[in-house]
Amino acid sequence: MHPARGFASDNSATIHPEVLAAIARVNVGHVKGYGHDDWTRGVQELFAEHFGADARAYLVWGGTAANVLSLRAACRPWEAAICAQTAHLNVDECGAPEALAGVKLLIAHTEDGKLTAERVESLIERVGDEHAVQPRLVSVSQCTELGTIYTPREVRAIADVARRQQMILHMDGARLSNAAAALGLPLRSVSGDLGVDILSFGGTKNGLLGAEAVVILDPELADGFDYLRKQSLQLASKMRFLAAQFQALLADELWRRCAENANAMAARLEKAVSHLPGLAITRPVQTNAVFATLPRAAIAALQDRFSFYVWDERIGEVRWMCSWDTTDEDVDEFADAIEQELRRS
Amino acid sequence: MHPARGFASDNSATIHPEVLAAIARVNVGHVKGYGHDDWTRGVQELFAEHFGADARAYLVWGGTAANVLSLRAACRPWEAAICAQTAHLNVDECGAPEALAGVKLLIAHTEDGKLTAERVESLIERVGDEHAVQPRLVSVSQCTELGTIYTPREVRAIADVARRQQMILHMDGARLSNAAAALGLPLRSVSGDLGVDILSFGGTKNGLLGAEAVVILDPELADGFDYLRKQSLQLASKMRFLAAQFQALLADELWRRCAENANAMAARLEKAVSHLPGLAITRPVQTNAVFATLPRAAIAALQDRFSFYVWDERIGEVRWMCSWDTTDEDVDEFADAIEQELRRS
Amino acid sequence: MHPARGFASDNSATIHPEVLAAIARVNVGHVKGYGHDDWTRGVQELFAEHFGADARAYLVWGGTAANVLSLRAACRPWEAAICAQTAHLNVDECGAPEALAGVKLLIAHTEDGKLTAERVESLIERVGDEHAVQPRLVSVSQCTELGTIYTPREVRAIADVARRQQMILHMDGARLSNAAAALGLPLRSVSGDLGVDILSFGGTKNGLLGAEAVVILDPELADGFDYLRKQSLQLASKMRFLAAQFQALLADELWRRCAENANAMAARLEKAVSHLPGLAITRPVQTNAVFATLPRAAIAALQDRFSFYVWDERIGEVRWMCSWDTTDEDVDEFADAIEQELRRS
Amino acid sequence: MHPARGFASDNSATIHPEVLAAIARVNVGHVKGYGHDDWTRGVQELFAEHFGADARAYLVWGGTAANVLSLRAACRPWEAAICAQTAHLNVDECGAPEALAGVKLLIAHTEDGKLTAERVESLIERVGDEHAVQPRLVSVSQCTELGTIYTPREVRAIADVARRQQMILHMDGARLSNAAAALGLPLRSVSGDLGVDILSFGGTKNGLLGAEAVVILDPELADGFDYLRKQSLQLASKMRFLAAQFQALLADELWRRCAENANAMAARLEKAVSHLPGLAITRPVQTNAVFATLPRAAIAALQDRFSFYVWDERIGEVRWMCSWDTTDEDVDEFADAIEQELRRS
Repeated sequence: MHPARGFASDNSATIHPEVLAAIARVNVGHVKGYGHDDWTRGVQELFAEHFGADARAYLVWGGTAANVLSLRAACRPWEAAICAQTAHLNVDECGAPEALAGVKLLIAHTEDGKLTAERVESLIERVGDEHAVQPRLVSVSQCTELGTIYTPREVRAIADVARRQQMILHMDGARLSNAAAALGLPLRSVSGDLGVDILSFGGTKNGLLGAEAVVILDPELADGFDYLRKQSLQLASKMRFLAAQFQALLADELWRRCAENANAMAARLEKAVSHLPGLAITRPVQTNAVFATLPRAAIAALQDRFSFYVWDERIGEVRWMCSWDTTDEDVDEFADAIEQELRRS
Repeated sequence: MHPARGFASDNSATIHPEVLAAIARVNVGHVKGYGHDDWTRGVQELFAEHFGADARAYLVWGGTAANVLSLRAACRPWEAAICAQTAHLNVDECGAPEALAGVKLLIAHTEDGKLTAERVESLIERVGDEHAVQPRLVSVSQCTELGTIYTPREVRAIADVARRQQMILHMDGARLSNAAAALGLPLRSVSGDLGVDILSFGGTKNGLLGAEAVVILDPELADGFDYLRKQSLQLASKMRFLAAQFQALLADELWRRCAENANAMAARLEKAVSHLPGLAITRPVQTNAVFATLPRAAIAALQDRFSFYVWDERIGEVRWMCSWDTTDEDVDEFADAIEQELRRS
Repeated sequence: MHPARGFASDNSATIHPEVLAAIARVNVGHVKGYGHDDWTRGVQELFAEHFGADARAYLVWGGTAANVLSLRAACRPWEAAICAQTAHLNVDECGAPEALAGVKLLIAHTEDGKLTAERVESLIERVGDEHAVQPRLVSVSQCTELGTIYTPREVRAIADVARRQQMILHMDGARLSNAAAALGLPLRSVSGDLGVDILSFGGTKNGLLGAEAVVILDPELADGFDYLRKQSLQLASKMRFLAAQFQALLADELWRRCAENANAMAARLEKAVSHLPGLAITRPVQTNAVFATLPRAAIAALQDRFSFYVWDERIGEVRWMCSWDTTDEDVDEFADAIEQELRRS
Repeated sequence: MHPARGFASDNSATIHPEVLAAIARVNVGHVKGYGHDDWTRGVQELFAEHFGADARAYLVWGGTAANVLSLRAACRPWEAAICAQTAHLNVDECGAPEALAGVKLLIAHTEDGKLTAERVESLIERVGDEHAVQPRLVSVSQCTELGTIYTPREVRAIADVARRQQMILHMDGARLSNAAAALGLPLRSVSGDLGVDILSFGGTKNGLLGAEAVVILDPELADGFDYLRKQSLQLASKMRFLAAQFQALLADELWRRCAENANAMAARLEKAVSHLPGLAITRPVQTNAVFATLPRAAIAALQDRFSFYVWDERIGEVRWMCSWDTTDEDVDEFADAIEQELRRS
């Protein structure tokens, strides 16, 4: 019996069959390791198509690594990064930014997980004061950890601040595909075209086995990056199998098809349950996450049958994530169960 | 047309079909991420079978990571690690031991890549002197970067020194399977049973897509290791696909079958060429590597047709690695070519 | 002509003559370096008198170093420190806690620079979650960067939380003498007796040339501290001259005499100006700092003649620090000037 | 009774009276902290006189700190430093280069503690190979830990290699004054004029209380150095008292007078004992250190009366250091004692 599909996380999902097929396809003969093979070279062209001719992609294994490498590439030891309090960098990386990159985070408290140009500017202080870290990088999550998205105009405004202050704009795009799909825009229109200098581009949450990319859009940041990747424990010897995953993701718009399904399933779920008495949607459903409050008894009963996380114990808020492989039936069954539990409680 | 098989590295090889099948087999339904799934739990039992009931395996992506994590688990900031000059830790990890673990290496110069108990002991000095790092860990590579292997007695002698000095014995077993196969011993008989406390157990060079394990044999070293793995950028979200790889490797003796083939192919190659005039085998061929000197013109001509590395430019020494997927025909064709080139030069 | 005494900082002040005399007194003959001399051993007895028989003092050069060493002694790589947003650790150490100790800070926003037991408890979350740093240390500043002091009962309440959570209580006592003098208590009654495990004890701001001490009150934290001090660039070769400074400070109650003068001068200044129209005292004056708002024109005019810092540009708040060497005349002259400027504006 | 003068180390010595007087002289009135005072500005001019108009001096507390700061200023995370096996950086800094600067050392084994251009060049390998650290800095100790000195021509040859390879030349000049005095040259003629880019200039071993300087001769290395010094725990708040020490040292040739005495005393000692049967001078006596072998019984007996270190237990080699305050009588008394002990044994 298969484990059922749930709503815990998009990394609970499977590998997309096209991705697994791509891995099998390159599993022939010997090639040089560490990315010095034709498949890895080939996938660079796909990145250039999607992110612009200057984009250089460095494939890595994990998302935390992509973020930490972005910090290491941009910041000298006394330089700091500005991010939202909810940012993965701040709360879900077990102190890697500080312990491995040595970078202090300057934290903006936000309601919706989104920085604003004003908030960023207010954190740029004590420039030139040797007692204080010097702000060097702004990191925005697109979409955010709360499922919300920045409009292109909002990113651009932050990019303008960054440029004016000679700072680097990093985008944590672990779910960039979901944001681009939601906005109906190409990948470059939500990243490099808006002034993003360096991007953590996610794949694992969108149908890959396990691969992410650091996409460098400001060529100066590429200086020494090969060494940083190796030293940061992220240089895959059998690189062709990471390249194959991205080959599958970026060809034939697989990235968009996967993301659109995940987003559509979240919208379907929201529609099915938002009117239910006792349940309140707590964040705008803009991508593939639904946040809601409901009675604790209902939460407990639902967790017996479906996997998902409680986001905020104090207020009984849950997070329901949809994935590339979530189906209409999955959602409908879950929505029915929610309705029943709410009626019961 | 497929890229031909060569002799550059065992990480130039493919994924073993049983491994790919195992990945596909677990690619169903949703499971919790980060290793909290039944497949990952299941693979722990296999590790216990092979390495002893107390063994705890932490799956990671890369071999450099396994080594660096071992250092981080064992060493406090002022503690140092003893290793051979040729150790991967020392020469092939772009300073990760120093930059990420903050650990100074105390280097033993050796002819054959192997530490000895005496050499280790001679590097344990200035104990209690606050001006000097304090030796805490000894790292042996089994097999070594030169393809040589430690006898069980040799490892045991080093383990005795480590125990006497209250030090930790680490084994870099990126190719442990090749060593165990060569010695005709089970995995635990070449590691934990000899006093190894923490082991980097390789998979990628022996038929996996990309997975290694830190096998902790001294349970005290496991304290906090979950955090270290996450912080060190090595916690895979879709862990089941790493577990599946090790499931395939450790069940049905696949690890041994793969390693035995690689070793046998190296022996076959040595036998075919060692008598050739103009060629000299430079290291004992004990596992899957053949080191040889031959005329530079021959090397150049051979590299036009076959991939392999020059190990030491100064003396014209090459390294030929065999892999799990190297065939008799591959070896014979290569040996023929070597013979022809030697005759020509 | 001498530079006049101002109100910029207590580290703008001179060395107390008794301290300079103590340095001169030990400037005879040769002694072993690095603290292996009788004077350094002797000063340990004074520390034991003032901080309890178990106290072990490690002399260092600077206050940032004392704080960073405390973090390094207490925290493993994945462990975090809780402190107030205003803490020196957070805002005045150029990222040393993160870059050198690798420690993430968990920040409490406070009005008065003081943590509370409740606030500390609210920051202890996600214990056992490998994605999050694990709180290990609480750092309180006594007195705070705002000149306020904790009551013994308040420190004890935080210590109780720390003990219950198996955390370490650190006290940044760069100005501990001022706090103890203000409370009329011995040094141990405001530190170790309240449950403080490790203390940064300041000397430089209280009449020394340049010396601080890490006073370890929980003996377990002393394990390896000698190495940490050396590695953290804080092992003075001519240690006797640091020891002599503390000898002077801790004998004959010099620490209290100096601190009482500084505190009294701040009280005198507050009394002289608090009633003036246009000026508002913004923080309780409990030790040697006076914070006040006054018209910007008055600030500018005063800064032409007296040195002091603007604390908060946005609201026109200044900080006036008194020192061990501030005199009644200094205060009266300054208060007169303030009054004149306020009348003018 | 005063502790007698011995031969353990030049940091066992006292503060030169002119230095202590200089400290007392600036102990008047209030000045801005952290080096923003006229005395600290003034000492920059003295450094410019001695090291050239472009030289910028950053005062710090300790020699290990000066070295680590030099590494941090020059090396990015994947860059390495070449030094001799005997270098203080390698053996006497408790792993600070690795743990704090994250810099791997590439070690040259030497007989006399001196690198050569050839040896440096042989360690510059694998340039452009992402698996290997990239050599970035060469560090020479002048004089060496063995008391030997580089000729200007030798330093120049190493500087030429460094320049050709776009590397930085660092000089650990903890005892640079002794070398310059021995060579009869100005300080700049043994440092910047020979191509040194960054210099750790020692003061503590030559009569100061405790102060060293990082002298930056390549202005590009000064970028961000203020932050590095603060973050590296080396920004003195009462900086005037460090400045005063260097003021005394650099004015009126005190540095040379002190060093010349120390050197002369070593020469006197060598002359007095080198002919004694049973004693062999083991290194050329070029500065203020005398290395010798003598019978173990004689060593033990001498150590009962005089402080000095055994350098190499295995061969019974001792190190006798002379200091700025060593006198003819000290040497003669010691030489007499040596002679008596040798006669006895």
